[in-house]
Amino acid sequence: MISPELVKEALKKKKVRSEEAFGLEYLRFNDDYKDIPRGTAIFKDFIIWGYPHIGRIFLLETGLREQFEAPFWVEEKVDGYNTRIFKYGDNYYALSRGGFICPFTTDRLPDLIDLRILDENPDLVICAEVAGPENPYIEESPPYVKEDVQLFVFDFMKKNEQGFLSQEEKMELIEKYNLPHVEILGRFTASEEGIKKIKEILKRFNEEGREGVVFKEDSERNKRAKYITSYANLMDIKTNAKNMLQLPPEYYTNRILRLVLFMYEEGLKTTEHLYEELGRAFIDGLFQAIEQFEKEHKVYKTFTCKFRKKENAIALLELLSKTSKHIQVKERRLEKEGDYWRLEFDKVFLNMTGLLGHLLSGGIVYD
Amino acid sequence: MISPELVKEALKKKKVRSEEAFGLEYLRFNDDYKDIPRGTAIFKDFIIWGYPHIGRIFLLETGLREQFEAPFWVEEKVDGYNTRIFKYGDNYYALSRGGFICPFTTDRLPDLIDLRILDENPDLVICAEVAGPENPYIEESPPYVKEDVQLFVFDFMKKNEQGFLSQEEKMELIEKYNLPHVEILGRFTASEEGIKKIKEILKRFNEEGREGVVFKEDSERNKRAKYITSYANLMDIKTNAKNMLQLPPEYYTNRILRLVLFMYEEGLKTTEHLYEELGRAFIDGLFQAIEQFEKEHKVYKTFTCKFRKKENAIALLELLSKTSKHIQVKERRLEKEGDYWRLEFDKVFLNMTGLLGHLLSGGIVYD
Repeated sequence: MISPELVKEALKKKKVRSEEAFGLEYLRFNDDYKDIPRGTAIFKDFIIWGYPHIGRIFLLETGLREQFEAPFWVEEKVDGYNTRIFKYGDNYYALSRGGFICPFTTDRLPDLIDLRILDENPDLVICAEVAGPENPYIEESPPYVKEDVQLFVFDFMKKNEQGFLSQEEKMELIEKYNLPHVEILGRFTASEEGIKKIKEILKRFNEEGREGVVFKEDSERNKRAKYITSYANLMDIKTNAKNMLQLPPEYYTNRILRLVLFMYEEGLKTTEHLYEELGRAFIDGLFQAIEQFEKEHKVYKTFTCKFRKKENAIALLELLSKTSKHIQVKERRLEKEGDYWRLEFDKVFLNMTGLLGHLLSGGIVYD
Repeated sequence: MISPELVKEALKKKKVRSEEAFGLEYLRFNDDYKDIPRGTAIFKDFIIWGYPHIGRIFLLETGLREQFEAPFWVEEKVDGYNTRIFKYGDNYYALSRGGFICPFTTDRLPDLIDLRILDENPDLVICAEVAGPENPYIEESPPYVKEDVQLFVFDFMKKNEQGFLSQEEKMELIEKYNLPHVEILGRFTASEEGIKKIKEILKRFNEEGREGVVFKEDSERNKRAKYITSYANLMDIKTNAKNMLQLPPEYYTNRILRLVLFMYEEGLKTTEHLYEELGRAFIDGLFQAIEQFEKEHKVYKTFTCKFRKKENAIALLELLSKTSKHIQVKERRLEKEGDYWRLEFDKVFLNMTGLLGHLLSGGIVYD
């Protein structure tokens, strides 16, 4: 549990904020604080712990040998956003990674997953990725989700508890309730044979445009690590070009280092196509931003997603406006479409819009 | 002049530091403060003003049209380091951009420039670039300086005064005293004809591996702007890879934007080779760092330069140690070579050394 003294301390340091959504009042850790991860939410009756950070290895072979002392499960890392689903009273809610009750995910839960599991196990918290082209948060999506969004379970937690159910318990629950889940590729070791197989999986994932994998040690300590494909590293660079001025300094250096260490591990001969692909990732994204500015005098991206209830679409726009720094959220349309409400909105990147406006009109920059 | 109150204020805010070098005590502005540029140095008898920032245009055509209302001179921007040379008592000194008395430049002045001009005009301050492969500060150097360093005058200031002598006065002094100077390419206007000629110059500079040009308006206000070639932008990315973790966030975004706006202005067809070149700039620099680490367990660059006096070589190492953050300065050798003292030293990049050591041994990173 979390002591009241610690909460008071965190409140004073603005690491905890008081939130209200869907009629629930709760406290949200908006930053890691001591051993409490960001996104931890304290409700009246229980705590939902934040989903912990998973460290990344940059070299597959050396990394797996160094990090794992027992066999580990390999699961797909789906390119979407993280959510934690729980039941409170008679209702189901979905928390975002940061600990907001997400109006989109919460609204769409009945479409995404059969929640009888929570009726029969009200103490469970489902950890899942929501991914697809029609989500309000990220532009990237896995190649096999062609429309709307889908949900992929990858872990279970319990209310008031840190840590996860074991892989065996998880797989049993997934099977029993027939839950949609991330692809589980098997149980491997960091042997030569194991690493060869994992490299083959990642080669295939890279070609298919999938993000990467998570390794989960089959042991008491349940150690975890992730590894991302070059495809995903390059897509990150490209799709975030419009938001380039807002990214932390390590955003690019980190991805470039991942790419170079991949080339180093695989050898330059088989990876030299990445020279041009890296240049393209940077340049194409920015070029699109310039062309968009020339036509429309602003740099933005359009998102679309559908809701069961209109009020949840409005709540989502409010939440995005509140949480987006230097980004203006602008509704385009919100209209009934069959049984759903179709929302379309723009995220206008104010810094890039301002800088391109200045530069394209011949402005001068002191740097 | 600068009022004593303002100096007191700046001292309190740590924008001014007290320095001692070559037996001189003085105050140095280590940051811009109000209208006083970084590098301004207050000596007992006079002030040497800092060399002001020159803004950059990203689009040549629109930029020149927007920024200049009168004809302007075009001068080469030499890829070296900025220095201000002045006489104090019977001696000559060279200040770095940041306002340190540079032990290297000061030591080598007799080799670099005939300073009779300062004997006959003791109020003058010579603003110049020192460039070449054997300098202690930067790895890049212009293609036409094959060894050691050379000095290129580009402006004159006066003691106690902000602002520069006019282009005419400058050219007269350069001629009268036969001073080495940056190439002056002529006086142009932002007409179609003028811009065409300037683009030809920059195309040639780019092919020759030169950094760029500075525009100086031939008018009372003496407005200035600079423009950098793609070659130099790419070299900046490549040569700074080892120091990547220390660079400010805008270092890369800025250079990539410059490149993309160049491609935008010139058209993709003639510039598509830049896709691969940009990728190469990032990847090759980092690859070299990895290979160096694998061999020598550290990431570093070796610099060499020669001095007239041994004590100045030692003073330079001390200055570099004092002013380099997260960089360890390590002497390799300091030996008499003919009439000179040959100094060789390493700059060890501690952050990159630490990170690569962690990653190459399979370490995990939380990001």
